[in-house]
Amino acid sequence: MIFYDCLTAPSPRRARILLHEKQAPHEVVNIDLMQGEQLGEAFKLINPSCTVPALKLEDGTVLTENSGIAAYLESAFPNPPMLGKTAIEKGLIASWNSKIEFEGLYAVAEALRNSSPMMKGRAITGANNYDQIPELAARGLARLNVFFDRLNEHLEERDFIATDEFSYADITAVVGIDFARIVKVQAKPEHTNLIRWRTNLAQRPSLQI
Amino acid sequence: MIFYDCLTAPSPRRARILLHEKQAPHEVVNIDLMQGEQLGEAFKLINPSCTVPALKLEDGTVLTENSGIAAYLESAFPNPPMLGKTAIEKGLIASWNSKIEFEGLYAVAEALRNSSPMMKGRAITGANNYDQIPELAARGLARLNVFFDRLNEHLEERDFIATDEFSYADITAVVGIDFARIVKVQAKPEHTNLIRWRTNLAQRPSLQI
Repeated sequence: MIFYDCLTAPSPRRARILLHEKQAPHEVVNIDLMQGEQLGEAFKLINPSCTVPALKLEDGTVLTENSGIAAYLESAFPNPPMLGKTAIEKGLIASWNSKIEFEGLYAVAEALRNSSPMMKGRAITGANNYDQIPELAARGLARLNVFFDRLNEHLEERDFIATDEFSYADITAVVGIDFARIVKVQAKPEHTNLIRWRTNLAQRPSLQI
Repeated sequence: MIFYDCLTAPSPRRARILLHEKQAPHEVVNIDLMQGEQLGEAFKLINPSCTVPALKLEDGTVLTENSGIAAYLESAFPNPPMLGKTAIEKGLIASWNSKIEFEGLYAVAEALRNSSPMMKGRAITGANNYDQIPELAARGLARLNVFFDRLNEHLEERDFIATDEFSYADITAVVGIDFARIVKVQAKPEHTNLIRWRTNLAQRPSLQI
């Protein structure tokens, strides 16, 4: 497999962590998002949507979304399970993963991409250009603060986000929480549950990459 | 199981179609979104995030996101498979489902919720109120038109969205395409692939509900 990665972006980090947890053998090709390499003709042949991560499988199939990469890896490399063992676990992990994606990761992306001078005209990832909307940057920040509060509440008396084991929902949450620093949002001292959860995960090798 | 539904909204329609395809036995409770029933104390006890669909399982677990409902149903009611049989199919269906959700369904929601007078102060679903951003309504419409063009291109010489069988990705796409009428976007005569695909699915019983 070939994994198209970028060390400075949050989305490919989710796939990178999952590949590490699964110990799935793969080659890495880094795409330089800062230089716009994802918009070049060479990468468009791999992923016409111009986004990373992308995972090229042995048969030539290219999976271009984190959800697809996770579903493939869980099926092809079942151990350790990261999307749940029972039907209920699978339901809870998928639910929490989506909530964190929408309320956390998208909120950071809205805040960053609609305000950063470097992302002028690039308010959404992908092949098309969209203008920044300053009000959307402000709304993203507001939503992100709500997300931190909610996640902290949710983690009261919990070690992990969705079940009683580490799962893909924790991966998505770690990536979202860490990425939020780019828009200067981080856990406040009163977010004691969130801080405990993140601190407990700090030594996990997959999360140090 | 108890399925919390609303016949006027697109998100619960995805779960309703899937429940029908799986022939999964369940009771239905309709939540009146037009009257704000999802924001009332009774429904908050079921889903504090104030959104439908929600699926209450026999053990009391409540799944509140389409992704979680789909993952649970696929595992608990494996036939017919809707999320793919092989690892590659699972990867492709999950990828397309996410793309359609982000580029299609979210675009309609942005266009509608940021412009409709009835949704003033309710630009995002859920427990919190967010003001409308008119520029975001315009951007949602622009993205939605791109989505129709892309989906039409993708369906060239294809009968289904992700694999060679009907899958959850087709369900999400049908719901997105149908819902787009609310913001006056629909297939143009030149979207011949998209029209053929939707017409071929028209007689499928699950899609008539």
